[in-house]
Amino acid sequence: MSAPNRATLWGRVLTDELAKGGLDAVCIAPGSRSTPLTVAFAEQPEIDVYSQLDERSAAYFALGRARRTGKPTALVCTSGTAAANFHPAVMEADRARVPLLVLTADRPPELRDSGANQTVDQVDLYGDAVRWDADLPEPEADERKVRSLRTTAARALSETTGVEPGPVHLNCPFRKPLEPITVPGDVPDSFAETTAGRGRDGPFVETGGGTRTLADDDRRRLRHALAAADRPLIVAGPADPTTLAALEPAAVVDLANRLGAPVLADPLSGLRFGPHVGGAGDGDGDGDSRTIYGGYDTYVPELPTPDVVLRFGASPTSKPLRHWLRDADARQFLVDPAGAWREATFTATDLLAADPATVVDGLLETVTTAEAGSDDAWQARFDAAERHHWAIRDEALTADALASAPFEGAILASVVSNAPDPATVFVSNSMPIRDADRFARPRTAALTMLANRGASGIDGIASTALGAGSTTDDPLVLVTGDVAFYHDSNGLLAVDRCDVDATIVLLDNDGGGIFHELPIEAFDPPFTDQFKTPHGVAFDALADAYGLEFERVAPAAFAEAYRRSLERAGTQVLAVEFDSETSHRRRDELEVRVEDAVDALESDRD
Amino acid sequence: MSAPNRATLWGRVLTDELAKGGLDAVCIAPGSRSTPLTVAFAEQPEIDVYSQLDERSAAYFALGRARRTGKPTALVCTSGTAAANFHPAVMEADRARVPLLVLTADRPPELRDSGANQTVDQVDLYGDAVRWDADLPEPEADERKVRSLRTTAARALSETTGVEPGPVHLNCPFRKPLEPITVPGDVPDSFAETTAGRGRDGPFVETGGGTRTLADDDRRRLRHALAAADRPLIVAGPADPTTLAALEPAAVVDLANRLGAPVLADPLSGLRFGPHVGGAGDGDGDGDSRTIYGGYDTYVPELPTPDVVLRFGASPTSKPLRHWLRDADARQFLVDPAGAWREATFTATDLLAADPATVVDGLLETVTTAEAGSDDAWQARFDAAERHHWAIRDEALTADALASAPFEGAILASVVSNAPDPATVFVSNSMPIRDADRFARPRTAALTMLANRGASGIDGIASTALGAGSTTDDPLVLVTGDVAFYHDSNGLLAVDRCDVDATIVLLDNDGGGIFHELPIEAFDPPFTDQFKTPHGVAFDALADAYGLEFERVAPAAFAEAYRRSLERAGTQVLAVEFDSETSHRRRDELEVRVEDAVDALESDRD
Repeated sequence: MSAPNRATLWGRVLTDELAKGGLDAVCIAPGSRSTPLTVAFAEQPEIDVYSQLDERSAAYFALGRARRTGKPTALVCTSGTAAANFHPAVMEADRARVPLLVLTADRPPELRDSGANQTVDQVDLYGDAVRWDADLPEPEADERKVRSLRTTAARALSETTGVEPGPVHLNCPFRKPLEPITVPGDVPDSFAETTAGRGRDGPFVETGGGTRTLADDDRRRLRHALAAADRPLIVAGPADPTTLAALEPAAVVDLANRLGAPVLADPLSGLRFGPHVGGAGDGDGDGDSRTIYGGYDTYVPELPTPDVVLRFGASPTSKPLRHWLRDADARQFLVDPAGAWREATFTATDLLAADPATVVDGLLETVTTAEAGSDDAWQARFDAAERHHWAIRDEALTADALASAPFEGAILASVVSNAPDPATVFVSNSMPIRDADRFARPRTAALTMLANRGASGIDGIASTALGAGSTTDDPLVLVTGDVAFYHDSNGLLAVDRCDVDATIVLLDNDGGGIFHELPIEAFDPPFTDQFKTPHGVAFDALADAYGLEFERVAPAAFAEAYRRSLERAGTQVLAVEFDSETSHRRRDELEVRVEDAVDALESDRD
Repeated sequence: MSAPNRATLWGRVLTDELAKGGLDAVCIAPGSRSTPLTVAFAEQPEIDVYSQLDERSAAYFALGRARRTGKPTALVCTSGTAAANFHPAVMEADRARVPLLVLTADRPPELRDSGANQTVDQVDLYGDAVRWDADLPEPEADERKVRSLRTTAARALSETTGVEPGPVHLNCPFRKPLEPITVPGDVPDSFAETTAGRGRDGPFVETGGGTRTLADDDRRRLRHALAAADRPLIVAGPADPTTLAALEPAAVVDLANRLGAPVLADPLSGLRFGPHVGGAGDGDGDGDSRTIYGGYDTYVPELPTPDVVLRFGASPTSKPLRHWLRDADARQFLVDPAGAWREATFTATDLLAADPATVVDGLLETVTTAEAGSDDAWQARFDAAERHHWAIRDEALTADALASAPFEGAILASVVSNAPDPATVFVSNSMPIRDADRFARPRTAALTMLANRGASGIDGIASTALGAGSTTDDPLVLVTGDVAFYHDSNGLLAVDRCDVDATIVLLDNDGGGIFHELPIEAFDPPFTDQFKTPHGVAFDALADAYGLEFERVAPAAFAEAYRRSLERAGTQVLAVEFDSETSHRRRDELEVRVEDAVDALESDRD
């Protein structure tokens, strides 16, 4: 590796090693101090370079890409507050296990705490939110330093996809010249890296990792409990990016069928949509038995509780489901590849640190239908409840019903039912993800539904969605509330700048509609001024600022406008206005109807 | 203090103590977990409540207010990434010594690291960037806990304005109910706080702080060096908010006159504008001797160096000045109230930890003109150079000159020359502050010029400016580049939401114009794609999204449009388009002309 000066050498070695380790994308926020990194990344043919001006949006864009692919994405910024702007996305990447490699440029060590401009303490900037962090030594054409740099690069990349994937931070001090200007003697012609014992094209350190499998005793314990269960249940919470890629839905369905266990599939589990869904997706409401259930949020409180639960993924989005599980007198096995205790209702009785796909495969080797099999009525109860849930929803979705009683959940229902196959559907936090959980019916189409459910912020939503869309030819749909849309409006610049098309569905209730769901609604003031907080942002103008098409759509006309947008190139914002209070009332009303119907069924059984 | 439940009690006690300690403003980003704080702040008649939806903008708004007043401003957000969005402003507050009290709501301790939604590790979130931080205990109607809460509130507020003012972080866990709902027995009727020995209306702990004065030996050493100097110089760098309020400009001028020392006044020093400027502000270029100099950025490299320098404030904005001081064979006294070593050129020979106002007053007691007094030619050199600097600038500012050779600095010149008296002028980082340094002529008008020069980010600019404008009836002018304007466009919501009017001068060169000043300009690619990065944001639409008037103005027509805007109510965006490359060439050309003129003068002297 030759270079006109040490900073350039440093950037080249670092990016070369990352490319050899498999890194294929970086998102760069422009700046001066990061010049050696930026120049070097731009020279790497194997690495796609995205550029975004707002570091917060840049970080979420990278997060979205890594979230969609499960592969590490790098991030670059200059020194100072730029690095702090990455913090929200780093936090989300930590909680959601998204592999993110954060490279912050820094001023040279002697300027730290010296009062120098644009100089802050960047070492350990993200605290416990990163899996690993290192403060790189100063660039120099020194054999050992360069070996350490290659090793550090390989290690950093590897740590992003370790047992618990997540963010890694490398702080990179540089001194001038930052540009590829020749500095005589800085990198002697005689300087050559030692790569003894290594193939010329491979990484300096090849990395690999094993898969955590259960010990025999643990596997027997799990198998025995599941096989003996009368009311077994599988609960698939939001999946980590890597689990989403590894867990085979057909295998889960196979296991569930052998056990007679309904699979309650969170919209972010990777199990609610796809060919494995089978009969549940035909939408004919004919009462066929199914395996994948999606309407549980409204009806589980009315059903008997399970006696054995097998759980994958993070804590489910549905609060009724979490509370129902909490109150169940059940053996609950939580399988987590990192062995993390992500179980905020403190319900799990068995915490199994193992790879979910391996656990499922192991069970399939030994569990047979003959021996297992639940009570006869167990799965039938879920079938009936599920049927009622979707039938009542469907009645509420007719054009007439929507014209007289619009509600935000209807849009989520339509977004999913009418999404092309395949598609990526990104759903904002606050109400949209809750409505997706309740109203997005399981389908056989290959829909990848994503959200930022690690820390569940409403920041960075557009950027994360566009980052996810940047890596696939699937059509991209984003469903967002108005506060989240406003919050990351800067992220919309990526539509043009990073060349991503999307259909953006904007549920506009002019403020924090979710607060109508909370007791604070009864206290006004300060409800309207400090919680609901109508803002009056002119979203048509905001879309225009970023060159996006904008259309206001009535709830009853949404499905048609949505289909048109999906057929068109470019990015359209479809804004559907709602009164959040009315919307919540309708949501509650539908919930009560389902509850009543299921309650009546259960009473009949008694 | 009574309350319907413990969370409400906690919020009321905390905000009551803050109000009694003198806190008079809070900026709240809406959220659920922070409900007890929000409700309590809204009940406090003494505290102005501002609301902003984007936590990053909210934090910078609070920063701007505290920066303008020197008084602490509080900030509130909900749990999760919301708190990380405060990080950039906290970092700026740290470096710029702005008193900021950050209150982050948190979930209860048992949910930490449990996988619970919207739950991250918020303890020690801002690392070393805060002066003090505490994780509050859980709310409870317990006598000792409530005493500790009042003491912690008093302490937190006091720490924001301690020896080195800055941000303080209180992490505030709350459990449900968060709203002021009656929970029987939660706060017993019999519960009464003990405030024994304290007046009912005062704070629980009154706080006060001494002023650091020099020891006699140190004072004598300083006095002796200054009085004996042949080429004494006073350099006033960017002032901290509290120093800005404390240092009496007339006293500095008095001292400078006795010493025969020119005062090189950074535009952010608090000394470049005001009645003390005297003759320098009359703009007649008549060569009167003056005390306050503002054109040094172009001419100091041509002048002899000082032998004794008295420095206040942070490192000067002007790089030529910093380098000239670095290369001077001079005794350099740096006076800093916190005794911080903010001196990145490592030039200071004497670091005096003392209050600058007290040091100046002490010198005035003992230094007499008769005994001190510099070389005859010393101040005359600065007078002549200063005269040439402004004369050459003025030639470049005529309508004809601007029509044929527009440059961004001309707008800064006009903004300052034509600003009403008084006015607050907020200047963005990157090129605007550098152009303000070079082209903003000292005036007798009471202009308060501010910028975020702690960490010098281009984030949060609009919010900081609007926060500064929210506390005063002075007209507010913001000068920003297009990237910074885009970066904090969310902050524009405060115009309507927080009821602040401004004239926003947008220097639009469609990208990172500053990079034309750097050697990377010669390397394209990646210059255009990764550094200059034209973005094409439609700023007229962006302004429209937030209900702002928008006008495109030619450079030669700017002064007139600016005057009109200042006379109108409401907020106007005046967008002046520049080609950044041309602008930089003109800037360089003017610099060379001044250098040549001063160089010729100096040659004549030899």
